[in-house]
Amino acid sequence: MKSRAALAFEAGKPLALEEIDVEGPRQGEVLVQIAATSVCHTDAYTLSGADPEGLFPSVLGHEGAGVVQEVGEGVTSLRPGDHVIPLYTAECGECKMCRSGKTNLCSAVRATQGKGVMPDGTSRFSLNGKPLHHYMGTSTFSEYTVLPEVSLAKVSENAPMDKICLLGCGVTTGIGAVMNTAKVEAGSTVAVFGLGAIGLAVIQGAQMAGAERIIAIDVNPDKFTLAGQFGATDFVNPKDYDDPIQQVIVELTDGGVDYSFECIGNVNVMRQALECCHKGWGESVIIGVAGAGEEIATRPFQLVTGRVWRGSAFGGVKGRSELPGYVDRYMNGEIRIDEFITHDMPFEQINEAFDLLHAGESIRTVLHY
Amino acid sequence: MKSRAALAFEAGKPLALEEIDVEGPRQGEVLVQIAATSVCHTDAYTLSGADPEGLFPSVLGHEGAGVVQEVGEGVTSLRPGDHVIPLYTAECGECKMCRSGKTNLCSAVRATQGKGVMPDGTSRFSLNGKPLHHYMGTSTFSEYTVLPEVSLAKVSENAPMDKICLLGCGVTTGIGAVMNTAKVEAGSTVAVFGLGAIGLAVIQGAQMAGAERIIAIDVNPDKFTLAGQFGATDFVNPKDYDDPIQQVIVELTDGGVDYSFECIGNVNVMRQALECCHKGWGESVIIGVAGAGEEIATRPFQLVTGRVWRGSAFGGVKGRSELPGYVDRYMNGEIRIDEFITHDMPFEQINEAFDLLHAGESIRTVLHY
Repeated sequence: MKSRAALAFEAGKPLALEEIDVEGPRQGEVLVQIAATSVCHTDAYTLSGADPEGLFPSVLGHEGAGVVQEVGEGVTSLRPGDHVIPLYTAECGECKMCRSGKTNLCSAVRATQGKGVMPDGTSRFSLNGKPLHHYMGTSTFSEYTVLPEVSLAKVSENAPMDKICLLGCGVTTGIGAVMNTAKVEAGSTVAVFGLGAIGLAVIQGAQMAGAERIIAIDVNPDKFTLAGQFGATDFVNPKDYDDPIQQVIVELTDGGVDYSFECIGNVNVMRQALECCHKGWGESVIIGVAGAGEEIATRPFQLVTGRVWRGSAFGGVKGRSELPGYVDRYMNGEIRIDEFITHDMPFEQINEAFDLLHAGESIRTVLHY
Repeated sequence: MKSRAALAFEAGKPLALEEIDVEGPRQGEVLVQIAATSVCHTDAYTLSGADPEGLFPSVLGHEGAGVVQEVGEGVTSLRPGDHVIPLYTAECGECKMCRSGKTNLCSAVRATQGKGVMPDGTSRFSLNGKPLHHYMGTSTFSEYTVLPEVSLAKVSENAPMDKICLLGCGVTTGIGAVMNTAKVEAGSTVAVFGLGAIGLAVIQGAQMAGAERIIAIDVNPDKFTLAGQFGATDFVNPKDYDDPIQQVIVELTDGGVDYSFECIGNVNVMRQALECCHKGWGESVIIGVAGAGEEIATRPFQLVTGRVWRGSAFGGVKGRSELPGYVDRYMNGEIRIDEFITHDMPFEQINEAFDLLHAGESIRTVLHY
């Protein structure tokens, strides 16, 4: 079938709007019509060429929501008409990772997903007979896309897809990092480095967890208003201080924070986030994705004196098990999504969405097919 | 009063046996007659001059056991005749750290302890009228030593002091790191880097916790026999492999270990210990003390994909609360100490004990006053 799509032909160039060919679902696969997708920094990172694992030509996009059109042989948990959120972190329930009960990093489709193909090693996308790579197992920048059954969370049909598409990455990642990875307790003091969508979602999560003090940190003070609306209580611009920012925060908090979150992908900030934690118990969670080959460093004394360094991917959330609940909590008013959406536009304006992201002018732009 | 002591006059020189003057306990202080002390790598590190916080002249020693001789004003929890183990990590029960319930890093006497003096800012040790520095708040290389009340754990009078002195540091640190810091579960796979006293105690702790597989790693294969006696099931000498040792261990264990422990103080090994952990849940605990200014490093991807980096000091053990129980478990046969003691000698041969440690020929030498 034919599908509208935005193609990444080469690094550093705008996406090209094309009509591509999408093959129907094979065994264990599902064809989904995407209703809405948003643009995340990871898409921009890959498009820039900085991602050493980036493949071209490809169909990017991983934050979306849509409706099942057709299921392949052997698919039992989904049927046409189901509303779904694509998952770049699958949940098969059967691999060693899923069975461990300790992680959301399902290994079922990871190897082929990283190679830009479906689990059988081939692509469902082509242009003029030439195959195109899939991306993150989701490829939501095509109106019709094919995913493994284990990479789709079935969610409420009452939820607006142009809002819950944000649960496919940013909002869930931030809230999950607070709830699942750090397990922030009520009364805690929390520091959040970087106030993009992930950072704002961490702030929302910290407020949901009952954190008493939430310190929002960004070099762009324009971000503080929205951070305050999500629950931040303190606002720190590192440019306002001569001292290292970890020292500033330690002094602000009588010894350091209970939890910190790095939501940028900057290895120097990752160190600051660790070192602003309280001796004896402070835990720092890395969420941001660093550049290829970059390393974090600190003195081991920081850990020996009780700080803990962790990371989080998709907020530790098991998509098929937990995402339906996230959608329900959005519908109940317990999780806020609308405030992240600074721009709405037709899918055809997707390059404008990238421009807004690069300019720091948007939190999220939702594209409507 | 007069006391036999071994003095550190300057970095890199042997200790000097002298008869020093020890002042009686002031308010909140306790005079203890040490019955036995052992020599730990931290004493050797400070004596070498590599410790940037090392002070001279001083009375080193921090692994000991003895009997209370006299208590100062206001001391209520101890009286003459009590058997005690000196604590370089105090437990006051009242500071922010103690009250948190999350750490053993009591802050009550930490500032003055680091300066080599008692909490009132003065020393109880002198030679020919010139003051000598205390060390780690314990100074067990003097037959008579003075400690804050909060730096003494009262233990069973039936326990042999020339054995339980090892609970003052090494044995407790290793077992505690397994039980309190990592919280190793039954059935786990564990890697232990470095088979000195701490590493062997970690192996013992892992066996007590029910670990199924315990991988002992050292470049000196002479250490493997004792490691096996404590419960190690696999033995790896990094010199036998061309591949990075973390890769060797990942392959040996179908993806990596559940828990790893660095018991050396080598920042490169700390990285190996982290990176040999299983994706999704592996946790690495740093116990060894690195050289001044040295840093650990890794790619943040290691943490984002679910590994956790921690550290442990005195095994996370609260000395006054928990050490009496450790002594009782030794008496019940649940904790083994005797096997760590490779040498016994009179206190006067203390420099020989340092030589054995440097030569890698001893695990622990116990010195008898």
